[in-house]
Amino acid sequence: MEKKVCEEIYADIFPFWNELSEDDKEYICSNSAARTYTKGTTIHDSSECSGVFLVKSGCLRLYMMSDDGKDITLFRMYEGDLCVLSASCVLHTITFDVFIDAEETSECYLISGPAFASLAEENTNIKIYTLETALSRFSDAMWIMQQILFMSMDKRLAIFLLDESARTKSDTVELTHEQIARYMGSAREVVSRMLKYFASENLVEVSRKGVKILDKKRLRALIG
Amino acid sequence: MEKKVCEEIYADIFPFWNELSEDDKEYICSNSAARTYTKGTTIHDSSECSGVFLVKSGCLRLYMMSDDGKDITLFRMYEGDLCVLSASCVLHTITFDVFIDAEETSECYLISGPAFASLAEENTNIKIYTLETALSRFSDAMWIMQQILFMSMDKRLAIFLLDESARTKSDTVELTHEQIARYMGSAREVVSRMLKYFASENLVEVSRKGVKILDKKRLRALIG
Repeated sequence: MEKKVCEEIYADIFPFWNELSEDDKEYICSNSAARTYTKGTTIHDSSECSGVFLVKSGCLRLYMMSDDGKDITLFRMYEGDLCVLSASCVLHTITFDVFIDAEETSECYLISGPAFASLAEENTNIKIYTLETALSRFSDAMWIMQQILFMSMDKRLAIFLLDESARTKSDTVELTHEQIARYMGSAREVVSRMLKYFASENLVEVSRKGVKILDKKRLRALIG
Repeated sequence: MEKKVCEEIYADIFPFWNELSEDDKEYICSNSAARTYTKGTTIHDSSECSGVFLVKSGCLRLYMMSDDGKDITLFRMYEGDLCVLSASCVLHTITFDVFIDAEETSECYLISGPAFASLAEENTNIKIYTLETALSRFSDAMWIMQQILFMSMDKRLAIFLLDESARTKSDTVELTHEQIARYMGSAREVVSRMLKYFASENLVEVSRKGVKILDKKRLRALIG
């Protein structure tokens, strides 16, 4: 990638950018490439070291896959988001399989995994940043798995929203997260995070007025 | 904790110990305590900052809990193992709930969470070590969840071992992991890791001779 363009983009994204030497900046830029991924393409497969993705536009979806082809979305990445889980060579400790699809046609910058890894080995700021980014993503993913697989919180929230919408004859459930949590016997934080997850799945829209149901059919499908 | 005792123990465990200043060593030691936990006690509950546990003897079990009281073991910690996931104040990014029980009566050293956190903020070696330890545990936990919840690999392996044991009329399945993987249509690495998990659960014993079934009843219960 051209250094001037590259520098402008990375300076906004990486908190450590200004502390890098000119050589290191040059090295990252010359190991970066602009890529466009067509909607529906799988851009990362299992535990190979595809590299570090930075999303410029569009949407990438990171997920795990089950034997029978079912998948569970761990998170989505939008403009400005960085994905380090796709670079197993940077994070030696990651050994489970994730997949990444372009959910929309997406423009990305892709930094070579080995190049990023060798810089991270030399530079503790890069290393800490990468580990913290990965850990934060992991933590979110564990939370989602816990809520969905153990607590059936996705089902319970879907049931509550559909029931409430039927009762009030409105697509918008005009309750605060706190109130929803109290009705469901759950915690506000749990409801807020699950609603955020629903919103990222385009099932609902969350606003000050309440929770607007966007896709009744898929909410019903969640209940199974 | 007395500094001399403390230094001897921590020098063996922490790769960064010898690089610490005397003040920092003193600080960690004076914020450490020896604790004995009786078998069956819950020693860490959800996302509070209990601190960093170092196991001297016994066995700690880290798990997630479901609504209906079922739990899933993410990993066990034995002598010399360190648990940083119980110190959410060190790892700001961890926000999901884990529990830790003393599965055996266990002697531990407990380093205060806030004390460890403040050192990690100042010392990049400590920070990197902590993040890498946490990430590695997370990665293992994600793998276990993926295999058990999505792939039913625990069930499939249990079925295979019980069938093979019945067929050969022996409690020991005399096959290599590679051979088991081939029979099951899986990968050797997956079989090896799942067998390791089974062994940590005292379901089987793995040796050069093969896989010895220790607890047929619980293996059958896995199949459900």
